[in-house]
Amino acid sequence: MKVYLSGEIHSNWREEIMEGAQSLDLPVAFLTPVTTHEASDNVGIEVLGAEENNFWKDHKAAKINAIRIKHGIEQADLVIVKFGEKYRQWNAAFDAGQAVALNKSLIVIHPEEFTHALKEVDAQALAIASTNAQALEILKYVTTQV
Amino acid sequence: MKVYLSGEIHSNWREEIMEGAQSLDLPVAFLTPVTTHEASDNVGIEVLGAEENNFWKDHKAAKINAIRIKHGIEQADLVIVKFGEKYRQWNAAFDAGQAVALNKSLIVIHPEEFTHALKEVDAQALAIASTNAQALEILKYVTTQV
Amino acid sequence: MKVYLSGEIHSNWREEIMEGAQSLDLPVAFLTPVTTHEASDNVGIEVLGAEENNFWKDHKAAKINAIRIKHGIEQADLVIVKFGEKYRQWNAAFDAGQAVALNKSLIVIHPEEFTHALKEVDAQALAIASTNAQALEILKYVTTQV
Amino acid sequence: MKVYLSGEIHSNWREEIMEGAQSLDLPVAFLTPVTTHEASDNVGIEVLGAEENNFWKDHKAAKINAIRIKHGIEQADLVIVKFGEKYRQWNAAFDAGQAVALNKSLIVIHPEEFTHALKEVDAQALAIASTNAQALEILKYVTTQV
Amino acid sequence: MKVYLSGEIHSNWREEIMEGAQSLDLPVAFLTPVTTHEASDNVGIEVLGAEENNFWKDHKAAKINAIRIKHGIEQADLVIVKFGEKYRQWNAAFDAGQAVALNKSLIVIHPEEFTHALKEVDAQALAIASTNAQALEILKYVTTQV
Amino acid sequence: MKVYLSGEIHSNWREEIMEGAQSLDLPVAFLTPVTTHEASDNVGIEVLGAEENNFWKDHKAAKINAIRIKHGIEQADLVIVKFGEKYRQWNAAFDAGQAVALNKSLIVIHPEEFTHALKEVDAQALAIASTNAQALEILKYVTTQV
Amino acid sequence: MKVYLSGEIHSNWREEIMEGAQSLDLPVAFLTPVTTHEASDNVGIEVLGAEENNFWKDHKAAKINAIRIKHGIEQADLVIVKFGEKYRQWNAAFDAGQAVALNKSLIVIHPEEFTHALKEVDAQALAIASTNAQALEILKYVTTQV
Amino acid sequence: MKVYLSGEIHSNWREEIMEGAQSLDLPVAFLTPVTTHEASDNVGIEVLGAEENNFWKDHKAAKINAIRIKHGIEQADLVIVKFGEKYRQWNAAFDAGQAVALNKSLIVIHPEEFTHALKEVDAQALAIASTNAQALEILKYVTTQV
Repeated sequence: MKVYLSGEIHSNWREEIMEGAQSLDLPVAFLTPVTTHEASDNVGIEVLGAEENNFWKDHKAAKINAIRIKHGIEQADLVIVKFGEKYRQWNAAFDAGQAVALNKSLIVIHPEEFTHALKEVDAQALAIASTNAQALEILKYVTTQV
Repeated sequence: MKVYLSGEIHSNWREEIMEGAQSLDLPVAFLTPVTTHEASDNVGIEVLGAEENNFWKDHKAAKINAIRIKHGIEQADLVIVKFGEKYRQWNAAFDAGQAVALNKSLIVIHPEEFTHALKEVDAQALAIASTNAQALEILKYVTTQV
Repeated sequence: MKVYLSGEIHSNWREEIMEGAQSLDLPVAFLTPVTTHEASDNVGIEVLGAEENNFWKDHKAAKINAIRIKHGIEQADLVIVKFGEKYRQWNAAFDAGQAVALNKSLIVIHPEEFTHALKEVDAQALAIASTNAQALEILKYVTTQV
Repeated sequence: MKVYLSGEIHSNWREEIMEGAQSLDLPVAFLTPVTTHEASDNVGIEVLGAEENNFWKDHKAAKINAIRIKHGIEQADLVIVKFGEKYRQWNAAFDAGQAVALNKSLIVIHPEEFTHALKEVDAQALAIASTNAQALEILKYVTTQV
Repeated sequence: MKVYLSGEIHSNWREEIMEGAQSLDLPVAFLTPVTTHEASDNVGIEVLGAEENNFWKDHKAAKINAIRIKHGIEQADLVIVKFGEKYRQWNAAFDAGQAVALNKSLIVIHPEEFTHALKEVDAQALAIASTNAQALEILKYVTTQV
Repeated sequence: MKVYLSGEIHSNWREEIMEGAQSLDLPVAFLTPVTTHEASDNVGIEVLGAEENNFWKDHKAAKINAIRIKHGIEQADLVIVKFGEKYRQWNAAFDAGQAVALNKSLIVIHPEEFTHALKEVDAQALAIASTNAQALEILKYVTTQV
Repeated sequence: MKVYLSGEIHSNWREEIMEGAQSLDLPVAFLTPVTTHEASDNVGIEVLGAEENNFWKDHKAAKINAIRIKHGIEQADLVIVKFGEKYRQWNAAFDAGQAVALNKSLIVIHPEEFTHALKEVDAQALAIASTNAQALEILKYVTTQV
Repeated sequence: MKVYLSGEIHSNWREEIMEGAQSLDLPVAFLTPVTTHEASDNVGIEVLGAEENNFWKDHKAAKINAIRIKHGIEQADLVIVKFGEKYRQWNAAFDAGQAVALNKSLIVIHPEEFTHALKEVDAQALAIASTNAQALEILKYVTTQV
């Protein structure tokens, strides 16, 4: 099963799930976006040249990152999106929308306090977890339970 | 051309665009979500029965609303998503993600201050407007300019 | 909005919903399967000639009915499936499966006692009603609530 | 050829077919749902927390199971659905509906007494078997006959 | 319901069905290929210029006709293909293949003597009629039977 | 039949075909891009604000125009692309590529001298015309010939 | 590249192409239908039980064979269909129609005398060969030419 | 990640990118069209027989080449199209159109002077590079950056 890990980039939740899956020897392959914040923000101007206007700087970066994100979501059978407490994280909800419309299974991880704000996303998810451990437990169940 | 108006529900931006289009006599039909906040939040328990747990109250409401939203996005040729300043508005980004994955044209309206936070969404949009008037101008151009 | 009414044929639930929608003047068009039991069972041999073996009699009838059912589900934006207490009603669940895979919104109506037996179907539905009146209420909400 | 084995979980029919295929060395890979009844029923509350209401207990379980079932049907070239004599087995017909709408080849196994009740499902199947041995024979034919 | 009438062009079977449907006032719209043999064979060179080689003469004609045939099959909900006794009629079977792969309902009309030769086509059809009257009867049933 | 007219904007070929179709009373509806060169080039900065860099000026304009072009191609059953002698006209070939991949029927109009340069496009077209009159003749044939 | 070899079963053309490809070491994998005529005709009654009526005998066989044919065409990047001189071979044209509608590349092999009868099929093919050697030559070109 | 390299065939840009990727050990597989100009132009008549008319000579060649190009674009996750200064290169824009409509990520390489002429293509690309080195840098970023 191929799993794309979308959302929060300021904690090590991806490593936690990937290492957990590895130590359980689950038959799962993971795909991720670029998670080095600075690399991700600057790739447009680093590769394709400077921009005076920040809008276009962001635009060029976001499009290059889209090559990787699009590939990740399209390859995946299952998309896990984590909403954390920092920043607006609209890109996480944007990824979730793409995943759902492309008919991927969706697992959402978020703290309980976001229940009302994320109700539309949760309504399309196949599991709403509050911890990384729960998401890992589900991966274990769907890939190894007889 | 069919246009779905997604996002902010605490201002009259939809009316502004719809009335503008009507007074210009544009060949455009509009689709919208339910925008009465309370009706939208309570429809699940109002119709299908009370829930003790707020999570399930929200869940039932969000799913019924999804019937309308899904229909709106799928019928539309063009989806306009407005991000305002109040609330987290993850559902707006979630709609935008669905629109893009379903291969709909996307116009985003947001204040300039959200440029960095919305760069992934903007990267997939065919126009990034900062005012309702600009969005209306684009509707006029794509439907009537010879 | 186009709505296909699938499932139980031994009660007047379709009429109840269609008449309710009409008296509320809802912008909804309904599609239905053939609901005259005998006509439906015999159409194969009536039109295409007798069969000695009941399997082939049923087979020919079910395929002709499939032309109508397939058309109904594919045209619909929303499929409502009612599970009643009589017979096995595998065709209702079969229609629900097709509706979900074709990405149609699904509303299920069933008595509470079927909750466990229908959990897989309910898990994919956008509303699980226990009465016809609730389904009608949802139709009203998604097509007329501002 | 990838084959998803859907339906009855209270007999060892899957093992019979999988072992038969293995002893014939057929080029077939099998996918299955979770078949441990208790694990399948309780996974929602075990992983994501208790529910007072049985409806939501079932709901959470059915959605997690859907991740596995959806993956199985979508990966498969051929779906074999067995209808046994116990329980209502609406989920078997629901899987069959999804398989057909996703354009998968469908083989149905059921006792002759269900011929009339399953006529709509049979009408879309490419083979209607009454024994596991027949289904295995077909797997052998379609993968090895020159 | 939109119906494309494919196959035999040397009898008046299309008129028979269309007039029958009209006199029964069935809610059916018909689409047809060009059935004037000579016009169909010569359209390529008539419109786009002469060819010395008959292969290219046929090629240019067949491609222009494909615009109409493709449109007819894609618009249709139901495709009726009639195999008559004259000529090889590979184009009828070719249309049937396209119809099936595009997920259209298929009705085949052919004399009993072709049963073995057409078994692969019949296997994918929802009705196999031997007369035009039977096909008309089915149209009546699927569009008007309550 | 819906027809999108793509390509050359510096001659009145669209008017010629549209008026021809009208005077023949063909059942054809036409869709076109914006053909006022200056409006098309400047729409981005006119509506969404000035850009210092010409690349971004063009970029904003091209994306707004894409809303109309995408709508035109997706609505069409048939796309007619005319290659004239002025400019590079990569957008004409780009539209033709989209049309073909979206499974639309394609008619190409170009002078004979472009035969070698356009061979890949011609290879996917259903007719290669050298004059507007021929394209009109084909529209007449596919919509009115009995 | 995966290639499905459809059509004539009364000559060794498949072996000729497969052995040719092997001796040239082409990176091509071949898929074929069952080509043992008797096995193919009788598989329905052999596996699923006798039928008095030849129509149903053929029907059951054709459906089981469809599992293999469908899998072959869907897996293939390229479908090669050979029309020989014996029998009506409607199934070959039926396979070609499915291949085209599923957007597979199509190569047709047939003697020149069938040019007029096969013009609709040829019009959708990417190559029309008259010998097996030509088809093999094309496989070599598209997979190994630098 | 699978990458199709489309466009210019009169420079060694493909080798430069492919060798660069190899020396960086990127997890990328490349697909290309036939780039030997003469082989590509003559394959139709070489394999399938002479034509008096150059149009048909080109036509037969372009269709055989389409088998390879279509396979390349459809297999690819990412299509890189290079526009050089020689010839009209409509086929490059045609490939880009197909890539976009098939929902592939698109990178365009072209000299700055083509900015205005290629604005419609650039508007749909996820990166617009002016050198091969930039395209390689992006491949490195999207496949290896953590």
